[in-house]
Amino acid sequence: MKRRSFLAGAAAAAGASALPGPAIAQGRAEWRLVMPWPKNTPGVAVNAQRFADRVGAASGGRLAIKVFGAGELVPPFESLDAVMRGVADIGHGTPYYWANKSKALHFFTTVPFGLTATELAAWIYFGDGQALWDEVYAQFGLKGFYAGNSGVQAGGWFRKEIKTLSDLKGLKFRIAGLGGEVMRRLGVTTVLTPPGEIGPAMASGAIDAAEWVGPWNDLAFGLYRTAKFYYLPAFHEPGPALEVFVNRARFEALAPDLQEIVKAVASATANETLADFQRHNIESLDPLLTQHGVELRQFADEIVAALGKTTLEVLNEFATGDALTARVHASYMAFLRKANRYNTVFDRKMLEMRAKVLG
Amino acid sequence: MKRRSFLAGAAAAAGASALPGPAIAQGRAEWRLVMPWPKNTPGVAVNAQRFADRVGAASGGRLAIKVFGAGELVPPFESLDAVMRGVADIGHGTPYYWANKSKALHFFTTVPFGLTATELAAWIYFGDGQALWDEVYAQFGLKGFYAGNSGVQAGGWFRKEIKTLSDLKGLKFRIAGLGGEVMRRLGVTTVLTPPGEIGPAMASGAIDAAEWVGPWNDLAFGLYRTAKFYYLPAFHEPGPALEVFVNRARFEALAPDLQEIVKAVASATANETLADFQRHNIESLDPLLTQHGVELRQFADEIVAALGKTTLEVLNEFATGDALTARVHASYMAFLRKANRYNTVFDRKMLEMRAKVLG
Repeated sequence: MKRRSFLAGAAAAAGASALPGPAIAQGRAEWRLVMPWPKNTPGVAVNAQRFADRVGAASGGRLAIKVFGAGELVPPFESLDAVMRGVADIGHGTPYYWANKSKALHFFTTVPFGLTATELAAWIYFGDGQALWDEVYAQFGLKGFYAGNSGVQAGGWFRKEIKTLSDLKGLKFRIAGLGGEVMRRLGVTTVLTPPGEIGPAMASGAIDAAEWVGPWNDLAFGLYRTAKFYYLPAFHEPGPALEVFVNRARFEALAPDLQEIVKAVASATANETLADFQRHNIESLDPLLTQHGVELRQFADEIVAALGKTTLEVLNEFATGDALTARVHASYMAFLRKANRYNTVFDRKMLEMRAKVLG
Repeated sequence: MKRRSFLAGAAAAAGASALPGPAIAQGRAEWRLVMPWPKNTPGVAVNAQRFADRVGAASGGRLAIKVFGAGELVPPFESLDAVMRGVADIGHGTPYYWANKSKALHFFTTVPFGLTATELAAWIYFGDGQALWDEVYAQFGLKGFYAGNSGVQAGGWFRKEIKTLSDLKGLKFRIAGLGGEVMRRLGVTTVLTPPGEIGPAMASGAIDAAEWVGPWNDLAFGLYRTAKFYYLPAFHEPGPALEVFVNRARFEALAPDLQEIVKAVASATANETLADFQRHNIESLDPLLTQHGVELRQFADEIVAALGKTTLEVLNEFATGDALTARVHASYMAFLRKANRYNTVFDRKMLEMRAKVLG
């Protein structure tokens, strides 16, 4: 409680001190960007750096953004607090990392059996998404911009095959997000091993299974050395989003052209980050299968049905949360049901048809 | 021939005259944008206008782009020539509209059973795509930027059901792109009715079937009034791209920050155009089904097999074209085969799993 009150006070102070100072009056600003990823982490940190570099180039150096990796300025999971307090001006992350501040933030990253990357972008840019997200972040003196997506993630690495629901009981599984809560209700012991420790924890037997991202990042971590069965795809992460969040007062103090540059470059970064993940994931699947003896699996219908039923229970609980979270839940779910009907006959049928032709 | 020589000469002249003049020396430029779509056409022209407005805002007015709709400055299908000649500075379009200049341009829009929107962006930004496209457009003094995608399109409106291959013989079908060539080889009489005349041509019986875009644009054209059977999805357009193309000399005469703004805003436009199509298509499918009595159909396996076999024949002919087209074909097809294997187990399986849960 004490820490929370301190943060609230600091955020108010940061708001006050963020009025145009000398640097901004001359039309130049230097910003500090924080993020929960170590520098150079593929997909995430690399695209955060590209975002910063492009803002610098597009503004002719009038808005220079210096990037700090996890722990360099603040600990990784304090990135949002740092931008609230004004210790940093801007951050790169993923909304559900801050779900302890508002449960509604899950919907701006991903939920189990939720929107794909393209559907999520549709809801954010042309549905209710951005306005609702603005309401959530306004509570913390922040503004968020959609800034990328990994696409459909992988379900995880399992040392033993999961054939029936009973195989889940007592399994020690590293899994992030609401998927962990769903698995817990089905008898799984879930843990959130930090990324860098997943490989060692699998190798030592401390955990039985682990999900991380997808072929590109999983190959880089060498997870294929710790388990043979690769379950695809992730029921729990159909298209997790990345974000750029800014201290709202600092953002509003920027000249209008610089505000537009931040906004446009965030959107360009969204476009190219998804392309980056897609390209490298596509190139990484074959090596896993042909060079590392990985075997692909998918959950049986019985397991999918149980995951689905439990997911809907977990998601329905958002409807009884605070009023804003309930509105976010209602808007997201209404769009999800329509998107599901649409892409069942568009994207899915296209992929089915194409596979008949290309094999 | 005469016209072609005139154009080549004009392009060279435009290159010479595009050296920094007074306007650019002061760091300001006014550009003219041409496009093959009437102003305000949803999805295409609306996003071209957004692109122009955002470049203006992000540059603080230093690069002002005035948008001319189809026919306002030049006829719709002369947009590319206009930018080559320097009559306009920049254009918005789709590469396969200019396939009479280079057959390779089909691959930068879409080909039957080809890449999805996300896969195409992956190939352009992080595969060989952009470098190859630069080579193609360099022949015409142009540079292209990926600027959007409609996503998977619809297969078309048919007055009579197509149950067997023999139902295709003699059918008068309005269809664009390489899909038309594939259909022609299967006995279809293909026509390329201009967009605004599709509805009347269907109503009068001049054609038996027509494909346009997808639920959003097809609903706007009222095509459901002319035929009952809506075939999904389009075998021939799994993710057609939109583009921004610039007169290369004019682009290179811009200050580096303005070049970066054009590039970043094109990429932001790519991101948001796909979201725009996705949102409105998702919202438009239900009304077609519930208010207008449309019946969804998909081609039978026998027809898909014939379309697939003929498509591969048509695509293989690109390998024996000019050397650059052959290289584009080889790179695209290699990536397509990997992307197909990848998304068979990622995107497709996710959509299958989700439909089991959401119905």
